[in-house]
Amino acid sequence: MYNFRTDLANERRDIYQKTSKQEGQIDGIESTKEEINENIKVERVKITNENGEKAIGKPIGNYITIDIKKLKIAQEEEIKQAANTLSNELKKILDEHIDKQGEVLVVGLGNIYVTPDSLGPKVINEIDVTRHIINYLPQYVEEGTRMVSAIAPGVLGTTGIETVEILKGIVDNIHPKLVIVIDALASRSIERISSTVQLSDTGIVPGAGVGNTRSEISIKTLGIPVIAIGIPTVVETAVLVNDSLDLFIEKLQDEAKSNEYLNKLKEEDNYEEIKEVLMPKDYNLIVTPKEIDELIENMKDVVALGINNSL
Amino acid sequence: MYNFRTDLANERRDIYQKTSKQEGQIDGIESTKEEINENIKVERVKITNENGEKAIGKPIGNYITIDIKKLKIAQEEEIKQAANTLSNELKKILDEHIDKQGEVLVVGLGNIYVTPDSLGPKVINEIDVTRHIINYLPQYVEEGTRMVSAIAPGVLGTTGIETVEILKGIVDNIHPKLVIVIDALASRSIERISSTVQLSDTGIVPGAGVGNTRSEISIKTLGIPVIAIGIPTVVETAVLVNDSLDLFIEKLQDEAKSNEYLNKLKEEDNYEEIKEVLMPKDYNLIVTPKEIDELIENMKDVVALGINNSL
Amino acid sequence: MYNFRTDLANERRDIYQKTSKQEGQIDGIESTKEEINENIKVERVKITNENGEKAIGKPIGNYITIDIKKLKIAQEEEIKQAANTLSNELKKILDEHIDKQGEVLVVGLGNIYVTPDSLGPKVINEIDVTRHIINYLPQYVEEGTRMVSAIAPGVLGTTGIETVEILKGIVDNIHPKLVIVIDALASRSIERISSTVQLSDTGIVPGAGVGNTRSEISIKTLGIPVIAIGIPTVVETAVLVNDSLDLFIEKLQDEAKSNEYLNKLKEEDNYEEIKEVLMPKDYNLIVTPKEIDELIENMKDVVALGINNSL
Amino acid sequence: MYNFRTDLANERRDIYQKTSKQEGQIDGIESTKEEINENIKVERVKITNENGEKAIGKPIGNYITIDIKKLKIAQEEEIKQAANTLSNELKKILDEHIDKQGEVLVVGLGNIYVTPDSLGPKVINEIDVTRHIINYLPQYVEEGTRMVSAIAPGVLGTTGIETVEILKGIVDNIHPKLVIVIDALASRSIERISSTVQLSDTGIVPGAGVGNTRSEISIKTLGIPVIAIGIPTVVETAVLVNDSLDLFIEKLQDEAKSNEYLNKLKEEDNYEEIKEVLMPKDYNLIVTPKEIDELIENMKDVVALGINNSL
Repeated sequence: MYNFRTDLANERRDIYQKTSKQEGQIDGIESTKEEINENIKVERVKITNENGEKAIGKPIGNYITIDIKKLKIAQEEEIKQAANTLSNELKKILDEHIDKQGEVLVVGLGNIYVTPDSLGPKVINEIDVTRHIINYLPQYVEEGTRMVSAIAPGVLGTTGIETVEILKGIVDNIHPKLVIVIDALASRSIERISSTVQLSDTGIVPGAGVGNTRSEISIKTLGIPVIAIGIPTVVETAVLVNDSLDLFIEKLQDEAKSNEYLNKLKEEDNYEEIKEVLMPKDYNLIVTPKEIDELIENMKDVVALGINNSL
Repeated sequence: MYNFRTDLANERRDIYQKTSKQEGQIDGIESTKEEINENIKVERVKITNENGEKAIGKPIGNYITIDIKKLKIAQEEEIKQAANTLSNELKKILDEHIDKQGEVLVVGLGNIYVTPDSLGPKVINEIDVTRHIINYLPQYVEEGTRMVSAIAPGVLGTTGIETVEILKGIVDNIHPKLVIVIDALASRSIERISSTVQLSDTGIVPGAGVGNTRSEISIKTLGIPVIAIGIPTVVETAVLVNDSLDLFIEKLQDEAKSNEYLNKLKEEDNYEEIKEVLMPKDYNLIVTPKEIDELIENMKDVVALGINNSL
Repeated sequence: MYNFRTDLANERRDIYQKTSKQEGQIDGIESTKEEINENIKVERVKITNENGEKAIGKPIGNYITIDIKKLKIAQEEEIKQAANTLSNELKKILDEHIDKQGEVLVVGLGNIYVTPDSLGPKVINEIDVTRHIINYLPQYVEEGTRMVSAIAPGVLGTTGIETVEILKGIVDNIHPKLVIVIDALASRSIERISSTVQLSDTGIVPGAGVGNTRSEISIKTLGIPVIAIGIPTVVETAVLVNDSLDLFIEKLQDEAKSNEYLNKLKEEDNYEEIKEVLMPKDYNLIVTPKEIDELIENMKDVVALGINNSL
Repeated sequence: MYNFRTDLANERRDIYQKTSKQEGQIDGIESTKEEINENIKVERVKITNENGEKAIGKPIGNYITIDIKKLKIAQEEEIKQAANTLSNELKKILDEHIDKQGEVLVVGLGNIYVTPDSLGPKVINEIDVTRHIINYLPQYVEEGTRMVSAIAPGVLGTTGIETVEILKGIVDNIHPKLVIVIDALASRSIERISSTVQLSDTGIVPGAGVGNTRSEISIKTLGIPVIAIGIPTVVETAVLVNDSLDLFIEKLQDEAKSNEYLNKLKEEDNYEEIKEVLMPKDYNLIVTPKEIDELIENMKDVVALGINNSL
């Protein structure tokens, strides 16, 4: 399989189309786009069969990408709009898997002390949990309120425990009907850092985005459906350079300054060669935008509000 | 039973002696004191039978109190000395319950976003975990290294899940041999805030110190020994006022300004009356010293270093 | 002069009335009260002559106290209401001292690393400054926009420089027409901690609340009017105990359990004696409520929004 | 002048040599290198005349670059070694400009709320200030102790005031003999992010590294010598891509896969073209490594300790 270096299904589909030189619809993959407003776009990719699975290396299921422009400078109103979009999509997916009162456990992956990795734990702090109120003070909640609990289990490097081991233990003990996992993703483009949300109902492999594959968190390992809310927050330098090189050659082509060799270079994927060049110099760092603190803060508001509204 | 309003066994013993007007040794309670240096004192209280249990309302077991003076202005050297004292006491207790290689899970209770309640999660971030290295990269650790894992499970108000439910799930899934729990305690004296550590091998009731009793975390609920490291970080205003009132009357007595009524007042416990007076005015807040940020920072270093050295 | 142990003019007036056994209006002090809504009350104290000055030890000028109940659990709507109240009062005072376009420098006193002392610097981070835009990109602001700048100068213990020395230098160099200073105050009652705002147009003495008198920040030292926004965030244990003792004796009196001696005790101010008792035991700490993080966060929103709306 | 896109004098000298195809010593520029240990290297560049100034676009003076490898995983011992190296170089520069007791003001530029820009304010919090002790409690310091004060003035976007305006005011008011400024720099290489310190005695232009030129902070504007301690913490994507492209072509050349066109491309500086390509896509972000929190934390310890030891 092609090394996509992105967890976003729509980016993978584009790359598959480009590298396989296929135009139009791919068998097993359905897509629709919707423009919510000037700044918010939604793309729904559905993988419907094994052919689709193989094409882009993602399991059968729904993948919804919400792109939010100018999140860095977003005001209250724009954050609410983005949260509403997330909330609407999340509700639709939830309804496919559990009933209105089905108990949900929200899990925020990541490390609170590493800014680009702190989104998950920060969202957890804002989730309106109801499980303990329903259990101990039922008079204070409306009948029919959904039980919601939330946890930030930490990261393997700090806990020494695989996240799935922690979650398996909790799920077996408190028996929710569905898990929502918030995680950092890898994307191909730095413009998507903390500006894109991908919703999917096929679970997650923590750290997959940055090359540290951990055990899967999914219906297979937990026994209940897992909805993943993934947000790109970092990008690998070699990916950045590879994509920028293509853009640069494209410009030379436009200006008729390119040549056969460069054209060929652009056709190929030079990621591995670039990585090889950068590695010995310690150049191939994982990077994040300078404004990551503010981006995370705004994205936290979007995701927390989006989840709270839908539950 | 008397309402001790302290989780410290040595404070309870003192109160029991005072209120029961017993002098000398109490049946079922053994105590020794040691002065490590000018600033560090250790007191070991052992409850040996049911009589001792009844007297001070704590289960049979070991209770070691380490008092550290001037922690607020402690420098590197003093923090290391305090950590060594903790480490020595912890090693002795560990050796009574598991062998040198027995796997340990360290649990930091509390809420990272509430300064006086953030000690537990902050210590967890500093624990030298080895479990994942032994599992995935055994070549990087010496043979015989003890497996250590660590978790900050959050608080009921944020997670909606009782801490013991989370821990039970994890313990059943990863099978450590012993749990060390770091928790906030109640103390009678504001001078002990973040300056005292109590080690015990009888487990813990989270939130007991501030009147929110949660389910017990102990060998009864988890099935393995639980060592508690408790640190007072807050005090209730009514406790503060009650104790200060006694000191004030004592002063009047010394100056021969007191009278029968005041003497009687001092003999009695006025906590309930004082609380009743303060409550309607919203005066009975739980308070913490102004310098709590720095106290927590220094105590975090003491506890993290103390645990790491002993494991 | 009586040791009031509060910076709030209305608390001082009450104490003056009580200790001097004066009822009704005091010469040189005018007061009005207004109830904005169930949770917000405003009291305006005006000191009009030297007699008023002497009575309560505050210079001639306006002192407006805004009390906000339940700020700890305040939602967006309640925070906006409180900010509006602050904004309305602030506008009135501003209009008395400068014209609509008069340049303002907002100063946030305090130490960002000490939670109960971090309000000032946190507010500064939220102020809508315009000075640099008017200077460098005037096309982006409406004509007639007021120049606003803001600074958090730090505290003497961290900078080694008196705050007034820093401000004097800046004021002489950038020439604002008025300074707004945000500072921590002392109050008599723990219920007022981070729930009360006092506005005054007579400047400030940093640290006065906690016994560290620094040089005055006022029209005398800076040469331009200084509006102070003071918020109580800490209280001294001896003050707490002294006030609680009075409440306790009151209760005994109500129950006819008191006696002559106690009645006399209540008439007197026992602060100094209580302090004397607590000091040798290191008991006389400055304390703050356990929930100070959340209180500061909400108060920051009230003050920042209140200032931004009025400028 | 060539657009160096780096504030490091030694990187500029290398680029000048490469682009001007000059080998060996350049007139007006003297350099020496020293290897302190396996992980720490020092390079001293001295610009001695106008010719040197013109060549690399930096004023006459001393530029000392300290490179610290593996700072991300540095332990206490390595941080102390790095601090000692900084301290030794700083002492030498200080001695050239003021006497042993000459008062020093340490200034930490940057924004505490933006992780890659927070180094300056964080260092200020750790500086051992003595000015207030010498002024108010001279009995507590040894005779001959140097007066040290420190300030974190904030950034133009938050204060609305040019940093030099703030500093000019303070310097004119408290009269130090020398200013040390800590600032973020631009570097060409991502490996130098928060791993390199440049000391210079020619002052600083805040924000120069990221294209926001502010007024100079130097002897010209403040009237006293200004020593700058600059640390690269961010890099522009176009710089990253441009440098990586060169490395990539070099590799193709080594493998004899390059061609005339590519060779020419490598000879030229393609920064502007790459920037042009990335800009319309919002790709040309300023980036920082994922681990920036930890890098800043360790670098803060190095710089604070280095300054404290030398003063």
